[in-house]
Amino acid sequence: MRRTPPRRPTMKDIARRAGVSESAVSFALNGRPGVSEATRARVRRVAEQLGWQPSTAARALSGEGAATVGLVLARPARTLGVESFFLQLVSGVQEVLAVRRLGLLLQLVEDVDAECEVHRRWWAERRVDGLLVVDPRAGDPRPALLDGLGLPAVVIGALDGPEPPGAPGSPHGVISNLWADDTGAMASLVGHLHELGHRRITHVAGLPELVHTRRRTACLRAEAVRRGLPDVTSVTTDYSDAQGAEATRRLLAGERPPTAIVYDNDVMAVAGLAVAAERGVPVPGRLSIVAWDDSVLCRSTHPALTSLTRDTAAFGRRAAELLTALLDGAPPCRVQAPTPRLARRESTGRAPA
Amino acid sequence: MRRTPPRRPTMKDIARRAGVSESAVSFALNGRPGVSEATRARVRRVAEQLGWQPSTAARALSGEGAATVGLVLARPARTLGVESFFLQLVSGVQEVLAVRRLGLLLQLVEDVDAECEVHRRWWAERRVDGLLVVDPRAGDPRPALLDGLGLPAVVIGALDGPEPPGAPGSPHGVISNLWADDTGAMASLVGHLHELGHRRITHVAGLPELVHTRRRTACLRAEAVRRGLPDVTSVTTDYSDAQGAEATRRLLAGERPPTAIVYDNDVMAVAGLAVAAERGVPVPGRLSIVAWDDSVLCRSTHPALTSLTRDTAAFGRRAAELLTALLDGAPPCRVQAPTPRLARRESTGRAPA
Repeated sequence: MRRTPPRRPTMKDIARRAGVSESAVSFALNGRPGVSEATRARVRRVAEQLGWQPSTAARALSGEGAATVGLVLARPARTLGVESFFLQLVSGVQEVLAVRRLGLLLQLVEDVDAECEVHRRWWAERRVDGLLVVDPRAGDPRPALLDGLGLPAVVIGALDGPEPPGAPGSPHGVISNLWADDTGAMASLVGHLHELGHRRITHVAGLPELVHTRRRTACLRAEAVRRGLPDVTSVTTDYSDAQGAEATRRLLAGERPPTAIVYDNDVMAVAGLAVAAERGVPVPGRLSIVAWDDSVLCRSTHPALTSLTRDTAAFGRRAAELLTALLDGAPPCRVQAPTPRLARRESTGRAPA
Repeated sequence: MRRTPPRRPTMKDIARRAGVSESAVSFALNGRPGVSEATRARVRRVAEQLGWQPSTAARALSGEGAATVGLVLARPARTLGVESFFLQLVSGVQEVLAVRRLGLLLQLVEDVDAECEVHRRWWAERRVDGLLVVDPRAGDPRPALLDGLGLPAVVIGALDGPEPPGAPGSPHGVISNLWADDTGAMASLVGHLHELGHRRITHVAGLPELVHTRRRTACLRAEAVRRGLPDVTSVTTDYSDAQGAEATRRLLAGERPPTAIVYDNDVMAVAGLAVAAERGVPVPGRLSIVAWDDSVLCRSTHPALTSLTRDTAAFGRRAAELLTALLDGAPPCRVQAPTPRLARRESTGRAPA
């Protein structure tokens, strides 16, 4: 005996159950601004409870779309396994895709040329309806490529170009952008260290070709000039613990070692802390350490690491919402994510006399 | 001004350019008889020049498969971002899939019931040709489900059942299994600690429902009996640093704290090391620490952590190879991966007197 299938829930049902207006439901489910994060979360929860299915699923079932979103990670494999950032990002992305029954097609490649090839192939094979693009870089070929193919995409991270990165006038017809203010975050970080009396600060940066590496480095230089700190520099690495440790060894062995080091990710900061311990350099007594990305790693070391922290899963959710909005036909837009904030822990203190 | 996106080349385009009929193109590209070898060669050349690719949807409809492999991770999101194991596994899987132009469809879910739902849906929607299944658990419903659906899969990790797990007689028609000898690895580890004089050993295990947790725990108990060590126990956790730290605090505050702790992953071991430092317990002077999975984390701490190490990317490659063999029609099989070996670093030493 089969029961009659239940009526398909509508946006009206969701609005009634969530106690909000229908347009709020539409905004929330389509990733548009105009509703609070709390409302957005409640609407999504109710939509899931009711088993609501958007038109994308219908389109997929009728063969009109792939009901799949693509993500290519172009990083050397050796540096990926330790990047907690990506799995956290993916877990946020999934939350949004799951409600819409969109799959996530993942591919790891060695470099951006290989990534472009994957994009072209996925397009030709109709494998994906849209893409998430990470690690924007200087002269990035991907936005123009995807726009040319008419493949909707959300670029995660500030694009190369004029400051501020959220300036109006999206150059691409089907590309949205979710960016965070790395410049502002770096300025607040230098301010914190300067207040503690630090004048010799080194920034152990990530891959030099990435836009956010360049922005952070440029901001550090500008802040150093503004504050009259001549001994402030950046060195670049591949984000691996090995290069983070090597840079730290070199810095600590120098004639005038820094009194504070800012690392562009958590793994390098942990490696740097281990080098300091191995050399008998007390942290924060003689050396202050800051990690750019926060993770469980930063809270698991002793001393616990002062870090720039943000909700990476929320960042992933927002990116996925922008992409589903594009798939629903919304015009592309640029949205600023919350600026990472400094979590002060035990690894930063007053500069040594 | 938006350009019109380029149109994907069709069989009609190829026919026009090659000067043959559309059905000749179809015969040629689908490897059917009915066209001369010369025509077949010309059609293929033109198809390549035009960048033609069979669409995934078309392939799926013609029964040729989705050219996609699925992987569902059923772990609480909060514990995933820190599991370097999974991204390393995926990077190995990708290496093999890329050569075959197979995509990897990834989904994160909260539990195994949700995973089964995803499997059923992917099957119903013809989204995947086969699956990789991780984290085998006691009474695992997935092998029977997938076998019932006729969906080829490789289970990564020892299945529940008689020892040794590689015993002949695969119970399922389309399921292969790649397993590692956790029992042997645990025995060698207990041997190492016993040789160093440790008699009070605690195993801070992972999720209790996973088969490998049970095997490790059972082996630890058997080894303790065999060696006459009454103070050897296991406690279970969710693999998170938080629960690893909490277990360590509880153990160190006990009346007869262990002199050695074995953690079921790297993140908990790092958290345990931080708790020891915070309590002023010297490692390895008063406490030896071993991590089950090796990663950059274990080499980044001070002291560096003694770990059970294996080539996780190679493990992923092997699993993907077993799956592509199944997709090619090979019979299912069970294959043993190399047993993890102990990398002795600075966190293990002689038991305190």
